[in-house]
Amino acid sequence: MKVTALAGGVGGAKLVKGLSQILPNCDLSVIVNTGDDFIHYGLRICPDIDSIIYSLADLADPIQGYGREDDSYNCFNTLIEFDEKPWFRLGDKDIALHLKRTSLIRSGKLLSEATCIICNTLGISIKILPMTDDDVFTTIDTKEFGELNFQEYFVKHKFEPEIVKINYTNSPMAKLPTSVKTAINEADLIVICPSNPWLSIFPILSIGDVETMLMQKKVIAVSPIIGSKAIKGPAAKIFGELGQKPSATGVADLYKKWLNGIVIDDIDIDKRKLIESLGIKVAVTDIMMRDDSNKRRVAEQVLEFAESVI
Amino acid sequence: MKVTALAGGVGGAKLVKGLSQILPNCDLSVIVNTGDDFIHYGLRICPDIDSIIYSLADLADPIQGYGREDDSYNCFNTLIEFDEKPWFRLGDKDIALHLKRTSLIRSGKLLSEATCIICNTLGISIKILPMTDDDVFTTIDTKEFGELNFQEYFVKHKFEPEIVKINYTNSPMAKLPTSVKTAINEADLIVICPSNPWLSIFPILSIGDVETMLMQKKVIAVSPIIGSKAIKGPAAKIFGELGQKPSATGVADLYKKWLNGIVIDDIDIDKRKLIESLGIKVAVTDIMMRDDSNKRRVAEQVLEFAESVI
Repeated sequence: MKVTALAGGVGGAKLVKGLSQILPNCDLSVIVNTGDDFIHYGLRICPDIDSIIYSLADLADPIQGYGREDDSYNCFNTLIEFDEKPWFRLGDKDIALHLKRTSLIRSGKLLSEATCIICNTLGISIKILPMTDDDVFTTIDTKEFGELNFQEYFVKHKFEPEIVKINYTNSPMAKLPTSVKTAINEADLIVICPSNPWLSIFPILSIGDVETMLMQKKVIAVSPIIGSKAIKGPAAKIFGELGQKPSATGVADLYKKWLNGIVIDDIDIDKRKLIESLGIKVAVTDIMMRDDSNKRRVAEQVLEFAESVI
Repeated sequence: MKVTALAGGVGGAKLVKGLSQILPNCDLSVIVNTGDDFIHYGLRICPDIDSIIYSLADLADPIQGYGREDDSYNCFNTLIEFDEKPWFRLGDKDIALHLKRTSLIRSGKLLSEATCIICNTLGISIKILPMTDDDVFTTIDTKEFGELNFQEYFVKHKFEPEIVKINYTNSPMAKLPTSVKTAINEADLIVICPSNPWLSIFPILSIGDVETMLMQKKVIAVSPIIGSKAIKGPAAKIFGELGQKPSATGVADLYKKWLNGIVIDDIDIDKRKLIESLGIKVAVTDIMMRDDSNKRRVAEQVLEFAESVI
């Protein structure tokens, strides 16, 4: 079974790690949000791609949720001498990846090519596909500060400012890479990872005709919301700011145009009927992915569930 | 007495450090070669400016001759995972400076402005002036490899390839910054540091009408050659490749159009007469600058000698 996952950062990295433990590498592709990407001190930083790469290479920092494990911060601490508030914490080892990527892009490589080279170097043979090679950056219109670029909103302001609107800048002009098209078209199953709908999944859907393409495929999501809370990050908060109640039902509703099934948490079993009334199948299980065996178990359940969804 | 020094890397940094111990900060300006600058992994690196900045801020690595003391190499060692041969060794703390500079330049600042901001942050009030804000990069035509950019020649190939010709690319189009003009015009004394003539001093002279301007000033050089050897680097080797014998006399000859006096080493006392026959005054002393007190002593002798040169 060929599986293509749509993924953002930490939640995406977890489920992708689980899938990678079951599927042969050649059967798994991951389309990754690049709306969070930014240029920082001249370096091209791709937080979501990096989360997935580090996770697959068993290099991820398990506590921070980003960056590399056992990293040092000598560069960052020195940067404090030059800048009072370098708000994005970069580890010394992590910087090596950003330097390499920046160097490849400056030498004329596309982001997708640079990603492929980096994956090869780290021994990752799963296809990690940036959603586009063009610059599509998520910006957030906030009440307090006006328009913020994504990392300003997310890291600098710790997603505290109230959201008025989310933009995927330049999205209508961006091209969907052939590799991404192929990954969707050839997939027997599309998995929507438990990532933030607005900040990780919708940016991918904003490129080309991805949304229309999903309508032709079997699509299974794993809910990023348990009860009324996000597993991590601002998903629940954004539901509220956009006038909706955060819940697995809310997630299903956001995806209903093209979603065939959703995996929700045990504590949300009472939402099954309501979600099914949207024409979406439901599987119920423990969806928290605390360690690698959890990730594998959830991934297995997604694939099993998919078999039962026609 | 207002003094303006023309300087390259290590030798320049040493004499500048000596001068800084004697002169009030406001009376010392340093025009620094930027022909060695390069973009590496997307970072703008200015080896000569950095040598001088680190030296003045008491942060220089005394053994390596570049970079910061007590630095770590976690980023660099990780880069080896991505690149088989990252030939330019970058310390973690050192990278912070390059990130800050790159970030300032990307935000629209000129190199001179970025340098000024960095100097302020590090408490350096001596004027450190890049020779130009334009891109003038030294390239080396070699027998073995054709044209090499400076750092490829110097670091990657350890200045082993035989030189056919040295180019200061884009130099005729480059503008001399007003601050550099002022530093020369207002100086009572110009000091040519014991830097490589072709790789550090001539690039500065290639910008605008610096050479003509020097003809109007009192100019004292310190020889970068002792006996027939360079204190550091390829100066002696380049003399040979360009068909000349390396010596303090050779240095004086290269500079004779505008040089008023030269400080040479004790062991070169026999060259005094020949140099004086070029119309250049000579001071003889121990010019090796091993530590800060040496640097101060040589600087003092330069200033004293200058008083005697009319």
